[in-house]
Amino acid sequence: MRDLPVIDGLQYGNWSERIFRQMREGHVMAVHVTICYHENFRETVANIGTWNRRFAQFPDLIVPARSAVDIDEAIAGKRTAIIFGSQNCSVIEDSIDLVQICRDLGICFMQLTYNNQSLLGGGCFEACDSGITRMGREVIREMNRVGMVIDMSHSGQHSTLQAIELSDRPIAITHANPFSWHPAPRNKSTTVMRALADSGGMLGFSLYPHHLKNGSRCTLADFCGMIAETVDIMGIDHVGFGSDLCQDQPDSVVSWMRNGRWTLMDKGSEATFPNQPTWFRDNRAFGGILEGLRDLGFTQVELEKIAHGNWLRFFRDSFGAIGS
Amino acid sequence: MRDLPVIDGLQYGNWSERIFRQMREGHVMAVHVTICYHENFRETVANIGTWNRRFAQFPDLIVPARSAVDIDEAIAGKRTAIIFGSQNCSVIEDSIDLVQICRDLGICFMQLTYNNQSLLGGGCFEACDSGITRMGREVIREMNRVGMVIDMSHSGQHSTLQAIELSDRPIAITHANPFSWHPAPRNKSTTVMRALADSGGMLGFSLYPHHLKNGSRCTLADFCGMIAETVDIMGIDHVGFGSDLCQDQPDSVVSWMRNGRWTLMDKGSEATFPNQPTWFRDNRAFGGILEGLRDLGFTQVELEKIAHGNWLRFFRDSFGAIGS
Repeated sequence: MRDLPVIDGLQYGNWSERIFRQMREGHVMAVHVTICYHENFRETVANIGTWNRRFAQFPDLIVPARSAVDIDEAIAGKRTAIIFGSQNCSVIEDSIDLVQICRDLGICFMQLTYNNQSLLGGGCFEACDSGITRMGREVIREMNRVGMVIDMSHSGQHSTLQAIELSDRPIAITHANPFSWHPAPRNKSTTVMRALADSGGMLGFSLYPHHLKNGSRCTLADFCGMIAETVDIMGIDHVGFGSDLCQDQPDSVVSWMRNGRWTLMDKGSEATFPNQPTWFRDNRAFGGILEGLRDLGFTQVELEKIAHGNWLRFFRDSFGAIGS
Repeated sequence: MRDLPVIDGLQYGNWSERIFRQMREGHVMAVHVTICYHENFRETVANIGTWNRRFAQFPDLIVPARSAVDIDEAIAGKRTAIIFGSQNCSVIEDSIDLVQICRDLGICFMQLTYNNQSLLGGGCFEACDSGITRMGREVIREMNRVGMVIDMSHSGQHSTLQAIELSDRPIAITHANPFSWHPAPRNKSTTVMRALADSGGMLGFSLYPHHLKNGSRCTLADFCGMIAETVDIMGIDHVGFGSDLCQDQPDSVVSWMRNGRWTLMDKGSEATFPNQPTWFRDNRAFGGILEGLRDLGFTQVELEKIAHGNWLRFFRDSFGAIGS
């Protein structure tokens, strides 16, 4: 169980050789990494430039992946495939033309909103959810065309349900848990989870303490029980990991994530990263969760689906352009 | 009546010496000019640079105005005061810091939305109006502080009513007409007009054909009758002109205004400028409207308020920073 390959649907570490080596030790074969929270296009391109330096520096540990083939090659070569994603649509600024440009630069996921209202839809912390906007409808069509996955992790419920309906291809909620288990604004209702599964989409289970019952004190047994309950709702083929692991990040990053440039005030009294649960501190800890699930009665086939199979199938179906 | 001074609450001409001379002939003492539809900060700064060249080229005709004092001096010097405004919040991009920067550069008006959903609020062509967003609430407070007028001409009704309520200072709808007179999405309900007047705000009457009953064939008598009816609703102290005159602009400008960079499709089957009514083709035609109003029974004092007095009072009250 400890050597079952793993795919993680979201991380935002303070990247280092140490983390990349832990990915290899933890049998993490592919990770969707965040390259944008509030950055505009030019700033995101700079972040890609920084990643290109990492790929050049650690070619024996990580490789960039823009397609399912790239991921297969990374796995064959015993490197961790790094898949770029943006947690916000700030990267395309006000321009639908930037969707294809971003996809060409390797961005495979884009959230339509990050907590707040965006040009495309409503965020989960807005009092009123606009739903998908005029521009949002066109951007969804364009993301479908170029093979960029719509991610609604930080969106409001109305926008999320509309995105599922408007998108011709399955969408993802890369990192969130059921609201019924832990009622945080970021977690998702049973209605959303059912619609997501019915449309062929994917949910990645988050290990960020604010998304966990009892926060940092959440137990492994509670977390595994939540997965079992979610599988009862969504089925075994539509769930995976999306740890939201922000390993080694300084607290200043929380301030950027929450406040961006949109407010003069510091939002949230606790602009610090919460402590991770003791049983999930880094990329070597997925095996422990899989053992916990096995102890609950999950079969080997089911564990393989959760650990990597479902994400791998979703990537294969999602990353190609229409007509390619 | 033909030489009563006039202030126009909005124009977007293809600026030239000819237009500036017509302003002087028409006794137009101040004009709020649009310097941004969808432009980002840098692009808007370039537009200001172009205006600076015009100010240098035609110092006997136009002067920049950033304050009520500047307007008084322009009037005394027999120049037309040019007041900058943005029809969208694209100019501040995602940054609340840019509100003060833009005000320091002379931008005295900013619309929170232009037809579509923005980061600040809902546009009048969206199916669902988000109201004022989290960022919008903070930007309104900041605009109040620095003395930048909130303009809701192209916003949805819910957002407009919320902006009136959230703003500590009166706001403007610089260019629109009553929806009851001509039911275009851009025109305003009686509810909005009453709330605007009750809060000390201003409505500028538009002469853009899409905002007029019978479009380009609208008669002067119809237009003057609409003003009289609006005064019955809003009172004589809260109305002025906001002609939305787009003189000498090529049709390509309509495409930019409507489509920006947010759509791959051409929006609207008629991406051309409509013909102006025969009685309002340029800046020399305000006198004819004032004569029409006089014929309806408006007094000299009332005509002076509509022609320039109300806008002048509003500018004096609005353009100063809080505490300055």
